Amino acid sequence: MTTFSPQPQSTQSPPALLEVKTFAQRHLGSGSDAIAQMLDQLGYKTLDALVEMAVPQAIRLQQPLPLGEGLSEAEALAQLKAIAQQNQVCHSYIGMGYAPCITPPVILRNILENPGWYTAYTPYQAEIAQGRLEALLNFQTLVTDLTGLAMANASLLDEATAAAEAMALSYGAAKAKSQRFFVSQDCHPQTIEVVQTRAQPLGIEVIVGDHQTFVPQAPIFGALLAYPASDGTLYDYRPFIAQVQQQGGLVTLVADLLSLVLLTPPGELGADIAIGNTQRFGVPLGYGGPHAAYFATSTAYQRKMPGRIVGLSKDANGNPALRLALQTREQHIRRDKATSNICTAQVLLAVIASMYGVYHGPDGLKAIAHRVRQCTTALAAGLQHLGYDTDASHCFDTLKVVSDRAGSLWQAAADQGLNLRYIDGQTLGITLDETTTVADLEQLLLCFAQGGTLPVSLGDLLAQADVQVAPGFRRTSAFLHQPVFNRYHSETEMLRYLHRLEAKDLALNTSMIPLGSCTMKLNATAEMIPITWPEFGQIHPFAPLSQTQGYQVLFQQLEQDLQDITGFAAVSLQPNAGSQGEYAGLLVIRQYHQQRGDGHRTVCLIPQSAHGTNPASAVMAGMTVVPVRCDDQGNVDLADLTAKAQQHQENLAALMVTYPSTHGVFEAEIRTICQIIHDHGGQVYMDGANMNAQVGLCRPGDFGADVCHLNLHKTFCIPHGGGGPGMGPIGVAAHLAPFLPGHGVLSNQNTLGSHPIGAVSAAPWGSASILPISWMYIKMMGAAGLTEATQLAILNANYMAHRLAPHYPILYKGIGGLVAHECILDLRDLKRTAGIEVEDVAKRLMDYGFHAPTVSWPVAGTMMVEPTESESKEELDRFCDAMIAIRQEVRAIEQGQIDPLNNPLKHAPHTAEVLLADDWDRPYSREQAAYPLPWLRQFKFWPVVGRVDNAYGDRNLVCSCAPMEDYGTV
Amino acid sequence: MTTFSPQPQSTQSPPALLEVKTFAQRHLGSGSDAIAQMLDQLGYKTLDALVEMAVPQAIRLQQPLPLGEGLSEAEALAQLKAIAQQNQVCHSYIGMGYAPCITPPVILRNILENPGWYTAYTPYQAEIAQGRLEALLNFQTLVTDLTGLAMANASLLDEATAAAEAMALSYGAAKAKSQRFFVSQDCHPQTIEVVQTRAQPLGIEVIVGDHQTFVPQAPIFGALLAYPASDGTLYDYRPFIAQVQQQGGLVTLVADLLSLVLLTPPGELGADIAIGNTQRFGVPLGYGGPHAAYFATSTAYQRKMPGRIVGLSKDANGNPALRLALQTREQHIRRDKATSNICTAQVLLAVIASMYGVYHGPDGLKAIAHRVRQCTTALAAGLQHLGYDTDASHCFDTLKVVSDRAGSLWQAAADQGLNLRYIDGQTLGITLDETTTVADLEQLLLCFAQGGTLPVSLGDLLAQADVQVAPGFRRTSAFLHQPVFNRYHSETEMLRYLHRLEAKDLALNTSMIPLGSCTMKLNATAEMIPITWPEFGQIHPFAPLSQTQGYQVLFQQLEQDLQDITGFAAVSLQPNAGSQGEYAGLLVIRQYHQQRGDGHRTVCLIPQSAHGTNPASAVMAGMTVVPVRCDDQGNVDLADLTAKAQQHQENLAALMVTYPSTHGVFEAEIRTICQIIHDHGGQVYMDGANMNAQVGLCRPGDFGADVCHLNLHKTFCIPHGGGGPGMGPIGVAAHLAPFLPGHGVLSNQNTLGSHPIGAVSAAPWGSASILPISWMYIKMMGAAGLTEATQLAILNANYMAHRLAPHYPILYKGIGGLVAHECILDLRDLKRTAGIEVEDVAKRLMDYGFHAPTVSWPVAGTMMVEPTESESKEELDRFCDAMIAIRQEVRAIEQGQIDPLNNPLKHAPHTAEVLLADDWDRPYSREQAAYPLPWLRQFKFWPVVGRVDNAYGDRNLVCSCAPMEDYGTV
Repeated sequence: MTTFSPQPQSTQSPPALLEVKTFAQRHLGSGSDAIAQMLDQLGYKTLDALVEMAVPQAIRLQQPLPLGEGLSEAEALAQLKAIAQQNQVCHSYIGMGYAPCITPPVILRNILENPGWYTAYTPYQAEIAQGRLEALLNFQTLVTDLTGLAMANASLLDEATAAAEAMALSYGAAKAKSQRFFVSQDCHPQTIEVVQTRAQPLGIEVIVGDHQTFVPQAPIFGALLAYPASDGTLYDYRPFIAQVQQQGGLVTLVADLLSLVLLTPPGELGADIAIGNTQRFGVPLGYGGPHAAYFATSTAYQRKMPGRIVGLSKDANGNPALRLALQTREQHIRRDKATSNICTAQVLLAVIASMYGVYHGPDGLKAIAHRVRQCTTALAAGLQHLGYDTDASHCFDTLKVVSDRAGSLWQAAADQGLNLRYIDGQTLGITLDETTTVADLEQLLLCFAQGGTLPVSLGDLLAQADVQVAPGFRRTSAFLHQPVFNRYHSETEMLRYLHRLEAKDLALNTSMIPLGSCTMKLNATAEMIPITWPEFGQIHPFAPLSQTQGYQVLFQQLEQDLQDITGFAAVSLQPNAGSQGEYAGLLVIRQYHQQRGDGHRTVCLIPQSAHGTNPASAVMAGMTVVPVRCDDQGNVDLADLTAKAQQHQENLAALMVTYPSTHGVFEAEIRTICQIIHDHGGQVYMDGANMNAQVGLCRPGDFGADVCHLNLHKTFCIPHGGGGPGMGPIGVAAHLAPFLPGHGVLSNQNTLGSHPIGAVSAAPWGSASILPISWMYIKMMGAAGLTEATQLAILNANYMAHRLAPHYPILYKGIGGLVAHECILDLRDLKRTAGIEVEDVAKRLMDYGFHAPTVSWPVAGTMMVEPTESESKEELDRFCDAMIAIRQEVRAIEQGQIDPLNNPLKHAPHTAEVLLADDWDRPYSREQAAYPLPWLRQFKFWPVVGRVDNAYGDRNLVCSCAPMEDYGTV
Repeated sequence: MTTFSPQPQSTQSPPALLEVKTFAQRHLGSGSDAIAQMLDQLGYKTLDALVEMAVPQAIRLQQPLPLGEGLSEAEALAQLKAIAQQNQVCHSYIGMGYAPCITPPVILRNILENPGWYTAYTPYQAEIAQGRLEALLNFQTLVTDLTGLAMANASLLDEATAAAEAMALSYGAAKAKSQRFFVSQDCHPQTIEVVQTRAQPLGIEVIVGDHQTFVPQAPIFGALLAYPASDGTLYDYRPFIAQVQQQGGLVTLVADLLSLVLLTPPGELGADIAIGNTQRFGVPLGYGGPHAAYFATSTAYQRKMPGRIVGLSKDANGNPALRLALQTREQHIRRDKATSNICTAQVLLAVIASMYGVYHGPDGLKAIAHRVRQCTTALAAGLQHLGYDTDASHCFDTLKVVSDRAGSLWQAAADQGLNLRYIDGQTLGITLDETTTVADLEQLLLCFAQGGTLPVSLGDLLAQADVQVAPGFRRTSAFLHQPVFNRYHSETEMLRYLHRLEAKDLALNTSMIPLGSCTMKLNATAEMIPITWPEFGQIHPFAPLSQTQGYQVLFQQLEQDLQDITGFAAVSLQPNAGSQGEYAGLLVIRQYHQQRGDGHRTVCLIPQSAHGTNPASAVMAGMTVVPVRCDDQGNVDLADLTAKAQQHQENLAALMVTYPSTHGVFEAEIRTICQIIHDHGGQVYMDGANMNAQVGLCRPGDFGADVCHLNLHKTFCIPHGGGGPGMGPIGVAAHLAPFLPGHGVLSNQNTLGSHPIGAVSAAPWGSASILPISWMYIKMMGAAGLTEATQLAILNANYMAHRLAPHYPILYKGIGGLVAHECILDLRDLKRTAGIEVEDVAKRLMDYGFHAPTVSWPVAGTMMVEPTESESKEELDRFCDAMIAIRQEVRAIEQGQIDPLNNPLKHAPHTAEVLLADDWDRPYSREQAAYPLPWLRQFKFWPVVGRVDNAYGDRNLVCSCAPMEDYGTV
C-alpha cells in the first residue's frame, strides 16, 4: 500500500482542522473579553505591553520556548498511555521498604481521585481544614499505637529522609556529645546512603556496621537499627538499645508498620524514635513515591520532632478543634537555628494510609499480617522441601534464600515476571505482602523447583503454616481500640466518613486559595487521570530498568522540557519536595567547590526576605548563613550585597535568591546580583518558588542562576494534596551537572554524574508517580499556552493590586508600579486604627467563603496574595469584593460604631452553631456575620469550628485520638 | 516444565489462605455483633431463624444458589478486565444516532465517577435536590434552545422509545382521529422497529414510507421524520409538515442535537415535537447506553408530555426553587389512564449532556459542529477525487457513498479497525464526529484509495472545506445565551459549578435514603470502576459482533447468574428501565397467547396495591386492566382474585403481582395465587421491584411466576444516578423464551427467539455499559453473600419496624408479625390529632439530615421504609431516633404546647438563611429547628431552599433557564 501524506502534520504547522477550545483555554481562568477588561483597568492595550513593563528588559526571553504546540487532553492522554505501556507491571517481591498492596477502591476514588481532597492546601487555616486534620490525627494515632511511642508527626517525605531526620534529632538531643552515629548494615541500602549524604556536611561520622559485633570506641550520639532487618531477619535489639542509651545516645528503629501488628513495638523495646514507610497501607508503589514516612518518638523529644504535628486544641466556643501544633519549632520561625528544613508532609498519602487503618481496623490489620505471615512461612517450608537454605522462624514477611544458583534463579524468576531481590551471588530476598495469592506462591515455588516437582502439597504447607512471629518477638499490647478504627468497616460507613471529612474542608473546588508564595492553580483532571494507571502505580522503585522504560521516557522528556523552560543544562528529578531541592542544590554547589579544591567556600548569602527554608537548608548543607539587607522596596540591597560579597570573597559559596522576589517584584537588577556573586567566586542558587512568574518570559539559566529548584506542585500543577506531596527537582548549569544526586541502589545515566552527591531521597527519581501530572501540563499547554499562563498570572496579580490598592496599601511594587504574579497587602495600619490583626482579617475571609492569602510572610502584619492564571476575573472580583467589604467592617471600628473587641472580625469565623444559638448579644446581626455579601446567600461554605486557640493546644499537647471517646464525628 | 498443583484451587473449596475481610463484609452494613444485637431485640437467635419465620415455608429455596464463592474486589476486577479486553475498541463511523465523543475529563471525574452525583435518588424531595434539578433545567434549556420548541422534558430512555412516546402523544392529542401513523423510511431502523413494536398492541397502523412520495389515503394522526435522515440527507420538511398539520396530524422530527447548532431548528420548521439522542454531548457510546434521549414540544402539548419535567417554582420564603413539575400527569397518578408508563429519566446522562453544553457554550458547540462539518466536506471531496459517488452538500456529518465495491470496501475498512455503516451492497455510510482527526481522515481516504494515491492534498481539502450547511437549512436564530451557558468555560469554574450543585444535594454519601419500593443500597466503588473503562465505554452499539466478544461473555454470564437467582430459563437484557421490563414482559405474554391462537386473552388482573406503572404498562401492551381487591393486611384478596379469574377466564391474559407485596409483606399464599391464574389460562407477571427480599431465599421461577423484570438499579447495585439510568431485564420461564425481544439491526442468538416480540429499546442489550456493575456485585458477593444480604435486609426492616412501632403503627405485617424488607409506617392519625401531614414529617426529616422514605405510597398518608442490607445498625438507629424525635414534636402539637400551623414541622425544612434572619418570631427556637438531636451539631446537611410550592409552579410553568438573569447560582 502506498502512503498518502502530501502534507506532513508537524506540531509546529497551523492546525488543519478548525480550532475547538484548547486545553490552555480551559486552564486559563479568563478569556479574551475578561483579559481586555482587566488590561483596560490597568491602562494597557495588550498582555505583551503589560509584560514588557513588568519584566525587566534585560532578562526577557527573546524567542518562544521550544516546546511545540499544546496537545488536546485526548491526544496527551493517548501519548502518555503509549509511554506508560512501555512499563512492564510485574509482581515485585523485592521488599526493601516497599510492598505491593491493595488500595481499597472506596479510598482510591474518594480520596486519591477526588479534588475535594487533592486540591486542598496545607492546613494552616485550621478552621476550614478540620477534615484532613482529623485524618492526620488518625494517622498519628495509627503510628503511635503501632510503634508504642507517645508522639508521632503527620508524616515525612520518605523512610530514608526520616532516618536522616532521626539522626539530626538525636544529634541535637542526645546527652552524648559526639559526632558519631551508628547505622546498622542491616538497614535498607538507600536509607544508609541518604543518612550518609545528610551526615557529611554536618561533620557527622556515620559508622555502618553489625550491631551484634559493634563495640563503640568512643561515645555515639545515636544509632539506627532495622526492625525487621533489610534481609528480613528479626533481631532482639533490647541489649543494644540499653547499651547505647547508657552511654547517652538515642536509638532509632526503622520499623515496618505492618509487621508491628505482630511484633513487640519499638516503644516497648525501649527505642527513642521509630521511623518507616507507610506505603503498604494502601498507597500504590508508584516507582518509589510519593508515600508517607512516619516518625514517632517519646514525649521527651516531642518538641524537637521535625515536620508537621497535628494536635487537639479548643476553639473560641470551647469546642474541640484540631490544628497544626508547635509551629514555633518550624524552620520558618527558627530559620538557620532549625535542625531540619522540612516544611511539608505527605498529607494525601498519610490520609490514605490512615484510612487504610480506619477501614481495616485492628482486627483487619491482624488478619492481613497473619496472612502475610502464613504465606511467608509456607513459602519457606516449600523452599526447604526443595532443598533451599532459608528460614522463616525469625522474620515477618521476608525470606533470605541462600543458594549457589542465586543468579540463575533470579533470572529464571525475572523471565516469568517475578522480581526477586538480588542481594549477592549467593543470596536472594523474597518479600511477601497482602496481595500474595496461592497462585503466586505456586508460581514462586515452581520457579525454585527449576522444572522439578514439589514433594509436598502447598495446601498442606499453608494449613500448617505458623502465623505467629517467633516467641520472643510477639506483640502482647492492644492497639487501635479508638472508636474511629472500629466504626467504619463497611463501605457505606467509610464513604460517608470520608465525605463528612471532605465537606469540612475548603479546597480549590470551592473557591480560590490566593496564597502568595504557594501557587494554587488548577490541577486539571486530565493531568490527574494517569497517576492511577497501573502502569505507573504498580511499579517497584527497584524493578529492573528493563521493565521501566516507560518511566525512563517520561523522565527524559520532562527533564528536557524543564531544561528548555529554565535554560539549564541538566535536571535531577530526585528531590521529592521543594526543601529537598534547596538542600540538594546547595549540596551540588558544595560539591562543585570541593571538587575545585575550594572546600573552604561555605558562606551562603541570604536576603532577609528569604523563606525560612533557605537558611535552614544552607545550614544542613554545611554552610554558614550571612544575611543580606533589603531596601525599602523589598529588593536586595545592592550595596549591602556587594559589601558582603567582598567581605566574604575568600569563602563565598553561594547566594540564595528568590525570583521574582518573595516580595512579589521582578527585581530589575537580578543580572547584576548574579554577576556580583560570580565575580566573588560564588554560585547563585535560585529558589524556584516563584517560577510561575517566569515561564516563557525569562529563564534563570540565562540571567545568571547556577542552580534552581522547581516546585512542581506550584508551577507545574501537582496538587497540594492538603499539604503534600510536593516535588522539588533541580536544574543546574552545565558546570554543575556532574554533581547531581546519584543513587546507589539503581544507578544509571539519569542519576549519576561523574562526581555525584549522594542520594537525597529514598527513591532514585523521587516521587516518580506524580511526574505525569507535570508532563501532561507542559504537553497540553505547549509553548504559547505556558507563556500566556505566566502573562495572565501577572495580569491577575496586577488587576487585584489595582482593585485593592485604594483599600489596602500595596507594600512593594516594581518597575512601572507593577507587581509580578503576587502582591503584598499592608494591613499593619489596621492594628493602630482599629486593633485589628491580620489574623482577624484572615479568619473573617472564611465567613466570606475564602481561604486567606499567606499571612504575615514575608512581612509580619501583611497578606501576600497570588491569584494564579487559573482564576477567572469573576473570582478575582469576588475576592476583592470580600476584602473591600472587610475593610468597611474595620472602618466601623475605626469610626467607633462597633466595639473593637466585639465585632465580626474578632469573632470570625462564625459557625452555624454559634449563629443559631438562642442567645445572641453581639453588636452585629447574625445576618451580617453570615451573609455580609449577597452571593453568600446562594452558596455558603460553613466553617465547622470557631477560631482555634493555638496557645492552649501547645500548652496541653494531645496529638492522637482520644482512647474511648469521640471528640467530633458522628 | 512439570506442573505443580497437588491441590486444585476451586472456588468451592475452603480458602487455603487466612481470610481477610470479604467484599460481602464490606457491602453489609452490620457485622456479627450488630446483627446479634438486632436479632436479640426481635427475639431471634439467628438470621436463619428470623428468615424461617418471615418467608413462607412453601416457597423457600432448599439449596444454595449455584453461584460459587464471592471474589475479592481485586480478583473480580481482574476477571472483568480480561473479559473487557475481548472487546476491540475500533473507530466507529457507523452513525445511526450514536457518535464517538469526548467526555470532558472534569465532567467524567466529577459527575460520572462521583458518588455525590451517581448515588442520588430521583429528585422527588426537591428541597435537597436543587443541584441536579438545576442541571436538568439546564438540559431542558439546551434542548428547547437547540430545537426551537418551547418545552422539553428532563430526558427519556433512548431515541427509539422517545419516538414511540411521540407517537403516543400524537395519538392522543391530534385533531385527526385516525389509527394511522406515518414513519419515514429515512429514520434509523431501530427507531422504526421500536415504534412498530409499540404501535401494534395499541392497534395503530404504522406506515413506513418515503415522505417525498407519500400520499395519505386517509388521515394520519401523526408523522415521524428524520432530520437529518439516517443516511445523512437533509430534506426540507416544511411542505410535508404543513400538509400533515393541515389534515389534523402532528409532526415529530427526530433530530440530531449537534446538527441543530447549524440547522434551522425543528420548531422553526413548524414541527410539533422533536426527539433524539443526546449521547454525543459527552456521553460514552457504551455499546448502546445508557444515554439520555430528549423530547421537546410546543406549549400546546406540554401537559401531555411523557416523563419527568423540571420546573421553576418558589419556596416558602418566596425564593426561586426547582422541582418536578406537573406530576399529576404521571402514571403513578393516572394509572391505566396514563399514555405512557415511563417513570424515570436518564438523569445522570442528561446531567452530563447538559454540562457538556454548559462547558462548551454556544460558541464551543458551533466550533465543534463546524469542525465536524469541515471534516465531512473534506472527506466527501477526497472521495470524489477518488472517483466515488458521494455528496456533502445536503448533509451535516454523514456521507452516503455509493459504490459497486461497497462490500469489499467495508471489509477493507473493518480490517483496519474502521467501522463503516453497511447500508446495502451498493451503499456505505460514514458519520464523522468531534473526535475525528486529520489522521483519521487520511486513514479513511487511504482505505477508499485501495492502494492508490490521492490526487489532491488533504490539507487543501480541509482548507477549502465549506463549514456551513446548505443555504436553505442554515440556522439564523441564536441559542444558549443564558448566563449558565456562558460562564463556566474554564475548568476551574466548571469544577466549582459542579461542586456547588453537588453540595446542594443529599445522596447516599451523606446518609441513608430509606425508600420503600426503591432499594437504595451501596453502589460499591469496585462495581463502578469498570463502567468508565474504554473497552466498555467506547463501543458502538452496532459494531460487528466479532469486536464485542467481551460484551457477549459479560451478557452470557450475567444472564446465567440472573437465571440462577430467579429460577427462570432465559433472560433478556434489552429493556432499559423497570417500566420497559414490565412492558416487554407483558408483550411476551401477549405474544405467547397469540401464538397459541389465544389472541383474545387480553384481561390483566392487577391488585389495587400495585405501582402505577403496572396498569400503565398493561394498557400499552394492549390489555384491559381489571383491579383485584386487597384484604386488611394488604394481601391480595384471594376470594376476589378467584372471582375475577373465573369471571374473565375466557379472556384472562395475566396477573401482575409484586412479591413481596408492595405492602412489604411476604404473602403466604403466593403459590396459590399463581396457581389460580394458571388454572384460568393466564400467565403470572411478577414485578421484580422487591427482588431484594428474595435473592437466595426463594425464586419467582420456582413458585409460579412466568415472567419477572429485575430492577438492576435496585437489587443489583446500579446506582440511581439521581433519577436514572435504570435497567429492567426480564426473566421468563422456558415456555416464554421463544418470545423474548428481538432486534432487527443486530440479531443474534442472544436476542432472537423463534417468535420474538419486536425491539423494545434502541439498543439490542439496552444500557449495556452499566451491566458490569451488576456482574461485579454478583461475582463479589457470591451465593452466600447474596443470601446473607437478603437476610440482613429483612432483619434491618424488622428491626426498624420494631423500634418504630411504639411511635408509628406498622400498617401491614405478615407471618409472625414480621415484615419483609420494608415496612409501612402509618402516619394518618397525626392528621387528626395534630393536623400534621405525612409531607410535614418528610420535610422535617431533612432538618435531621435524612431523605424521607417513600411518601403516601402505596397508601396515602403513610411512609414506606426500606433500609437495605448496606445500612449499619448505627445508621438505622440514627434514623429511628430522628423519627421518634419528630413524633415528640408532633406530641407537642397534640398537647397544645405549640401552634398547629406554626411549628418546626410545618416550617420544615429550615434553611440556614431563614434561621439566621434577624427577626425570629416563631414559637420554637432556632436551635430546635436546626439541631433537634445532638449529632446534628457534628455534621449538618443544610437544605438550600425552604418548602417548595408545587401548585404555584404548575400554575406558572417555567421549565427552562431564565434568559438574562440568574436565579440562584453564584
